Amino acid sequence: MSEQAPAAAGGGRRRRGRRRAATDGAGTGGAAAVIEQPPFRQPKLPFSPTELLSADELESIHHASLQVLSEIGVDFLHEEAKELLRRGGAEVEAGSDRVRFDPALVEETIGRAPAAFDLHSRNPAHKLRFGDGRVTFCAAASAPNAFDLQGGRRPGNRADYRNFLKLGQMLNAVHMFGGYPVEPIDIHPGVRHLEALSDMLVMTDKAIHAYSLGRERVVDAIEMTRIARGVDRETLLREPSVLSIINSSSPLRLDTPMLEGVIQLARHRQPVVLTPFTLAGAMAPVTIAGALVQQNAEVLAGYVLCQTVEPGAPFVYGGFTSNVDMKSGAPAFGTPEAMRAAIIGGQLARRYRLPYRSSNVNAANSLDAQAGYEAVFSLWGAIMGGVNMLKHGLGWMEGGLQTSFEKFVMDADLLQMVAGFLTPVGTSPEDLAMDAMREVGPGGHFFGCAHTRARYKTAFYQPLISDWRNYESWEEAGRPQAPEKANQIYRDLVAAYEPPPMDPAAREELEAFVARRIEEGGAPTDF
Amino acid sequence: MSEQAPAAAGGGRRRRGRRRAATDGAGTGGAAAVIEQPPFRQPKLPFSPTELLSADELESIHHASLQVLSEIGVDFLHEEAKELLRRGGAEVEAGSDRVRFDPALVEETIGRAPAAFDLHSRNPAHKLRFGDGRVTFCAAASAPNAFDLQGGRRPGNRADYRNFLKLGQMLNAVHMFGGYPVEPIDIHPGVRHLEALSDMLVMTDKAIHAYSLGRERVVDAIEMTRIARGVDRETLLREPSVLSIINSSSPLRLDTPMLEGVIQLARHRQPVVLTPFTLAGAMAPVTIAGALVQQNAEVLAGYVLCQTVEPGAPFVYGGFTSNVDMKSGAPAFGTPEAMRAAIIGGQLARRYRLPYRSSNVNAANSLDAQAGYEAVFSLWGAIMGGVNMLKHGLGWMEGGLQTSFEKFVMDADLLQMVAGFLTPVGTSPEDLAMDAMREVGPGGHFFGCAHTRARYKTAFYQPLISDWRNYESWEEAGRPQAPEKANQIYRDLVAAYEPPPMDPAAREELEAFVARRIEEGGAPTDF
Repeated sequence: MSEQAPAAAGGGRRRRGRRRAATDGAGTGGAAAVIEQPPFRQPKLPFSPTELLSADELESIHHASLQVLSEIGVDFLHEEAKELLRRGGAEVEAGSDRVRFDPALVEETIGRAPAAFDLHSRNPAHKLRFGDGRVTFCAAASAPNAFDLQGGRRPGNRADYRNFLKLGQMLNAVHMFGGYPVEPIDIHPGVRHLEALSDMLVMTDKAIHAYSLGRERVVDAIEMTRIARGVDRETLLREPSVLSIINSSSPLRLDTPMLEGVIQLARHRQPVVLTPFTLAGAMAPVTIAGALVQQNAEVLAGYVLCQTVEPGAPFVYGGFTSNVDMKSGAPAFGTPEAMRAAIIGGQLARRYRLPYRSSNVNAANSLDAQAGYEAVFSLWGAIMGGVNMLKHGLGWMEGGLQTSFEKFVMDADLLQMVAGFLTPVGTSPEDLAMDAMREVGPGGHFFGCAHTRARYKTAFYQPLISDWRNYESWEEAGRPQAPEKANQIYRDLVAAYEPPPMDPAAREELEAFVARRIEEGGAPTDF
Repeated sequence: MSEQAPAAAGGGRRRRGRRRAATDGAGTGGAAAVIEQPPFRQPKLPFSPTELLSADELESIHHASLQVLSEIGVDFLHEEAKELLRRGGAEVEAGSDRVRFDPALVEETIGRAPAAFDLHSRNPAHKLRFGDGRVTFCAAASAPNAFDLQGGRRPGNRADYRNFLKLGQMLNAVHMFGGYPVEPIDIHPGVRHLEALSDMLVMTDKAIHAYSLGRERVVDAIEMTRIARGVDRETLLREPSVLSIINSSSPLRLDTPMLEGVIQLARHRQPVVLTPFTLAGAMAPVTIAGALVQQNAEVLAGYVLCQTVEPGAPFVYGGFTSNVDMKSGAPAFGTPEAMRAAIIGGQLARRYRLPYRSSNVNAANSLDAQAGYEAVFSLWGAIMGGVNMLKHGLGWMEGGLQTSFEKFVMDADLLQMVAGFLTPVGTSPEDLAMDAMREVGPGGHFFGCAHTRARYKTAFYQPLISDWRNYESWEEAGRPQAPEKANQIYRDLVAAYEPPPMDPAAREELEAFVARRIEEGGAPTDF
């Protein structure tokens, strides 16, 4: 088969040094010299998400959550939050953090947040749609360790952090940064958000996420995003531009720094992504339904607060329910339990007409088959669950304790495959290919026919990592494994990185803001 | 977390030498000394398969297939088949193998085959349901090479073949053998089917598949299955007990040995699984829709022949559409194109009220991350497509050129995860866990609560391969990788193999039959 013209003319996947496309404003720039990749584009689900529970079963989860909220309640470790909720109609237990919600209060709040919204970035070409069936792929976030084959596993640092920013900027599969790809622990915590967010806003032009570690950091992040975008405060209020993940301290508790985040984000009409950390068997009941009831109660509790602060503020339903290994207590990911929870989480989000956040996660320690299959099982649950925001989309390893440069590239491949899977199958007369079958006829072959010649270059997804050579050729090449291929691509992409253009005035203003806030001492670190 | 009682009491996953359950008639026997595994059980889809095409788009595929059948036609390289089709109303071109089908003839045949049927095996506990949302996992078939870490890659041989039978018998995830897991090429082709099928029928008690390599082999396989089951001919006609995959020689051609198979199987009312080998860009159009039109036309052509020979004979719609790498011509699997084709294939099968066959395939040369993610992408397409018969479910590597012992074990793990995913999520009051949340309350933990203690042993799927230890423990253990873990389990299971009980009279009759047919010279090898 290999003597056919289209094959011979196909050219190499890696075209290092052969071609260098001009920066196109969408961040691919020098990446074209290293890899071929589809353009920056949010996929859209071309089918209905999977319904794992019947409507009645789903209602049983909803009603049990309302019962949890009204009978057990949720602890809010924040005086202002409690006061806001009290004024909003919730019942705050005297001398306690416990807040209970009447079912009617919750029900009347549902529908207030938008079913879909845009998340803006400083490059308008990277604006994202949350909801409407669109999917956003986020880079991994918050790992304390970085890994690559050259340096092995090491504590997160600013150099690795910046290399992840470079890599994420170069890969079109990265739609946004979902926090710090790795924690730059060599920057003092008091000023880390200033330095790290400044890096992110300058070195990349994609949408961002900031951590909710107290009021000052969230307010700084909102202001820095405004400056980097070069817009005024009114525009920022109209145009969500920075979001934050709010993790509840499950079970049924929201802590002070996170609640500061909810309040500040809502006041600035920036999106809150409320994601309970409900690992079944540890911080949530051991049954999937029970863990989902609790997840749902925690999301709704944060949702009511958010809508009480600012009715109509954008809000995303976050699902992170997985299970622990009951033998060790270690969190597990990509499990059958997590897949089902991810799908039902999507059903719940749609019930409340909210965008849905899920994850691409695994518990593997190295980039072996386990990392591959656990990741795709996670993706399966997320995508068939109708995910809108895929957190930890690229690079996540070891249950979140490591972000791997090789995994980051491999995930770009996996996410591009998912995007390919989500591309509608055309059924036009040309797609149905009657003429091609007439031309080729029984017993012929399609390699050289006109229909193939017109389409062979773009007909199929070209993987970054998968090695499709025959065994003999692969053996002669030294039996390369997936991590080695990913490593080469990562290093080439970081080397080929070009900073995206930035308005010099915005950059100057951002630098001045950071300098001033550092001068002022940054943010408190005593929570 | 690890100090909690449930974790400490959980026991080890591997309990080699500590427990040896009595053979339970379902083939787990000595396996319990090596691994914990869920019982032999066919999962059932608890949700509607994904609809990737709208009803109208699906009809456009159907109508284009009818147009292919009526206008272009299909070559049938078999005089009797042509005569049967001519008498059935098809138009056979004079002096040619070309057969054309009037759309009305095809339409009136639809609905004749059963929407579901049982496939019997010699152990009634291993009887399978084809259709009704049930899924059958088959071992890989037909690879010319075997692989394990000790012996590397080598040509298929009877010793490896028999070890795959042992392994498949011990693993409950194997519901049936889908042909020879590896081709025992050290047995002469004229008698290979006799020796190899005899091994399979004696060493295992699961349902089987025989190859359609001419009339004699198919008739021998049917007779051997009847003898092994200890039933008479009338029972066998009522109870499908051996099936065969019929691959068309795409495009639009069915060859002599395969057509012998269709005719003999239909006459004996044994199931035909018609699976076109439609690799887009090579043996089928380069567009997904075009490849599916051709796949569908080929399936329908074989279906009409089958139902012409024996109205009501069981028939399975086989989909194997993937794409080739346009640079090398090599087949690719687990691709976005294959996933979409697998899902639409299921829509077509349901349109014709036929059980659906798809596959768990990949093109990796070694058990690295690629093997993991390509396999799960394949599974994703198959399962969400509503697969009933998952061919090559365990062991397949290298696009079918290799069956790997390690991959076989890893696939048992993947398939058990899929089965776990397909297990309905309970929403009873106990599942909703209100009492547990009341007991634990905000800020507590669920490790020790009564709800958890009652369920922790069986709440979550316990993987065979995934390593969930933390990085430090894993590093101290020598950084074990998935293939090494799978290798140990495979060798322990083969060592622990116990032959399933067999009626001595049936075994004697089977041996006598094989001896007689070998004496007679076996089957022709000149096609």
